[in-house]
Amino acid sequence: MLERCLGQQRVRRIQRAVRHAKVTFLCLFMTVVVMRGMLGAGKFGTPAQDLDDLTTHFYASRKHAEPHRVLVEAQPENENENQSNDPKNYATFDFNKILKDEGGEDEKPDPNKPYTLGPKISDWDEQRGEWLKRNPNFPNFIRENKPRVLLVTGSSPKPCENPVGDHYLLKSIKNKIDYCRLHGIEIFYNMALLDAEMAGFWAKLPLIRKLLLSHPEVEFLWWMDSDAMFTDMAFELPWERYKDVNLVMHGWNEMVYDQKNWIGLNTGSFLLRNNQWALDLLDAWAPMGPKGKIRDEAGKILTRELKGRPVFEADDQSAMVYLLATQRDTWGNKVYLESGYYLHGYWGILVDKYEEMIENYHPGFGDHRWPLVTHFVGCKPCGKFGDYPVEKCLKQMDRAFNFGDNQVLQIYGFTHKSLASRRVKRVRNETGNPLEAKDDLGLMHPAFKAVKVSTSS
Amino acid sequence: MLERCLGQQRVRRIQRAVRHAKVTFLCLFMTVVVMRGMLGAGKFGTPAQDLDDLTTHFYASRKHAEPHRVLVEAQPENENENQSNDPKNYATFDFNKILKDEGGEDEKPDPNKPYTLGPKISDWDEQRGEWLKRNPNFPNFIRENKPRVLLVTGSSPKPCENPVGDHYLLKSIKNKIDYCRLHGIEIFYNMALLDAEMAGFWAKLPLIRKLLLSHPEVEFLWWMDSDAMFTDMAFELPWERYKDVNLVMHGWNEMVYDQKNWIGLNTGSFLLRNNQWALDLLDAWAPMGPKGKIRDEAGKILTRELKGRPVFEADDQSAMVYLLATQRDTWGNKVYLESGYYLHGYWGILVDKYEEMIENYHPGFGDHRWPLVTHFVGCKPCGKFGDYPVEKCLKQMDRAFNFGDNQVLQIYGFTHKSLASRRVKRVRNETGNPLEAKDDLGLMHPAFKAVKVSTSS
Repeated sequence: MLERCLGQQRVRRIQRAVRHAKVTFLCLFMTVVVMRGMLGAGKFGTPAQDLDDLTTHFYASRKHAEPHRVLVEAQPENENENQSNDPKNYATFDFNKILKDEGGEDEKPDPNKPYTLGPKISDWDEQRGEWLKRNPNFPNFIRENKPRVLLVTGSSPKPCENPVGDHYLLKSIKNKIDYCRLHGIEIFYNMALLDAEMAGFWAKLPLIRKLLLSHPEVEFLWWMDSDAMFTDMAFELPWERYKDVNLVMHGWNEMVYDQKNWIGLNTGSFLLRNNQWALDLLDAWAPMGPKGKIRDEAGKILTRELKGRPVFEADDQSAMVYLLATQRDTWGNKVYLESGYYLHGYWGILVDKYEEMIENYHPGFGDHRWPLVTHFVGCKPCGKFGDYPVEKCLKQMDRAFNFGDNQVLQIYGFTHKSLASRRVKRVRNETGNPLEAKDDLGLMHPAFKAVKVSTSS
Repeated sequence: MLERCLGQQRVRRIQRAVRHAKVTFLCLFMTVVVMRGMLGAGKFGTPAQDLDDLTTHFYASRKHAEPHRVLVEAQPENENENQSNDPKNYATFDFNKILKDEGGEDEKPDPNKPYTLGPKISDWDEQRGEWLKRNPNFPNFIRENKPRVLLVTGSSPKPCENPVGDHYLLKSIKNKIDYCRLHGIEIFYNMALLDAEMAGFWAKLPLIRKLLLSHPEVEFLWWMDSDAMFTDMAFELPWERYKDVNLVMHGWNEMVYDQKNWIGLNTGSFLLRNNQWALDLLDAWAPMGPKGKIRDEAGKILTRELKGRPVFEADDQSAMVYLLATQRDTWGNKVYLESGYYLHGYWGILVDKYEEMIENYHPGFGDHRWPLVTHFVGCKPCGKFGDYPVEKCLKQMDRAFNFGDNQVLQIYGFTHKSLASRRVKRVRNETGNPLEAKDDLGLMHPAFKAVKVSTSS
């Protein structure tokens, strides 16, 4: 099954990694460095600078030098206007200027200091509790059993390398705006790199910490990747189920704790409660993240330790599997690996079934019958190379978007002409009594966003 | 001043339009058709099909046939991987497939029926009032003096013709998400064309009507163009000032009612209260909108009747000026032309002053000192041609975005390295007591989004 999931190319890379026996020694060495970070500096005392300057072979698509992008619009034959040198003509504008990296250097981290997300805080529950008491007009529960949730997502401040990458980011945020509006959830869209050492997939950690500490009124922070889309607009998360846990991710206990499978859970869509435990988890999670040697070497450990993991630098998801699998006693009782619905749903097994779902089911299930989230892992439409054919990714992203969008449009009496079509058609006539319109999905005035009504007369 | 605003080219076009004397006859004829729509079918009886098939000269950039977009990435010299025929390589993907129009035809409107936004509703105040009474958990006022507001914006479901167009749409919606989150406002991002006859700038009318009728809980609908950005995150609209009006637009009474100046008001950012008056206004506003002969001919009337208007098809803004100027008694007492702050701020007179504003003022003024909205009229980054040089538009849009974004980032202790830079730098150190951080602008927990605290013990 893994071959089918990952492809022949990756299986060969895995085999190659196993054969590099000498890396084992370096991995053991790095384990010491990493464990020092997890358990606290001072217990081991080996600074990162002891590491040799090693070259590593990374998972190919992540490390190609990025060519400068020069886009030249082909002139159609019937174009009769002289467009050359027209400064108002976007077709002849040199977009290289937009895409090139800015000059200037990031602050250089001190190699003698172990990485830290920020000053250690040990009394966050008390600080937050006090604040909430003093600020009853910013309650952390909007209604009984309905926590205040902040959905956090984002993308690079640079234009995508590909012409349509930004268009899909735009559709993706519209999709999230729709779900969150229906469910009374606020959104934070990040386009700032807060910590240069934690670039790429690790950038979410400093961001999450900053938002938790700045917004004590937020009970749950919901991280969601930019390539994940909501496909069940009617599904409300089962908040009651999570009342005693602090971290919810889609995944399976056996795959994480027993197999240490690198895809045993997914960090593309998860909930994190705003409390001391979360700060401690972030601190424990972060050490494999700092880019460069630490991240590279940590990647090798993860490839060795986790089942099925290809060779590439450490990523946050693998690090989370490793953290939970090796420190279950510390974290496990507050982590819920949810497989009852698709808090994250791998697109590969979902997108061909949309028509079947429409035929047999309806929104509100959130699971295989009608997935809450369809997540386009590996498609990378903003980059240069994806792990899947471009045409397939874009076509399926359009279908997933329309599948979700139809549930919003039906509120207003419209639907897409097909799952492949941008165009919409009317499915319900206008009337003189719009408030009597059938609201099949209950999404026009959803119960999950109603405010509490004061019962005092 | 108009020349400086509009450019030499447009002044020449205005002069040319005046010289076409024979058009006057057609304009008079069209006035009859249009007035029939405004006053009600039946009073005149001349159907649109009486019009000859006329060709008109439109404002040039709106009517060029659009060339197919073929984007070919130039191969850098040091590229050593064979990218040709790699289906996973976005660089070699044929994006024409994405951009081409879909086949199929829109429903043909019946030429014998005058255009209408929907069945006439005359008791919306009663219907809405009843609904609000029955649904106290969806109040139209969030707090005393704080109406429930829905900000409505949107863009085409097609990727932009220009590689960076979608990137600027993405930044623009992030900017709106930030302002609305801080001010307790919900967002509706539209990407559906609900009525093929009302395409382009007129598409907002059917959308607005649909949203008002579907959301009785919304007190004010705030339409905002996709090329308008918030540049004062701290400015809360003066809702009390508008308690007796139904439509608020940036503009000047003299320029609209006395001069009939086509830019005497701006429909790129306006408030519309959810009531019967609004439905009636939309019905009165719509008749110049249906594309084709009606819109073309209406454009000629508007060019003739309004001061400074170039020759092009009827647009919603000119039509609004014309409507108010010719029917002041009907609408004027419920329209507030706001010039006390920049509900819409023309970018041309603002963007060079940002540094001066930072030096001398602070967020919260909303006016020339710190504009609420900077609106990039004429830039059209999603299209092929703008009215201004591309480089200038994109550079200034980046500056405006960063100017606004800095006000959000400062909540978290960061700022852009400069107004031109995507990169951010830390301006406040992390501490162990994040809730004691200085919140200069009061944006961390803004008063305008606090909920009402029940005073019952």
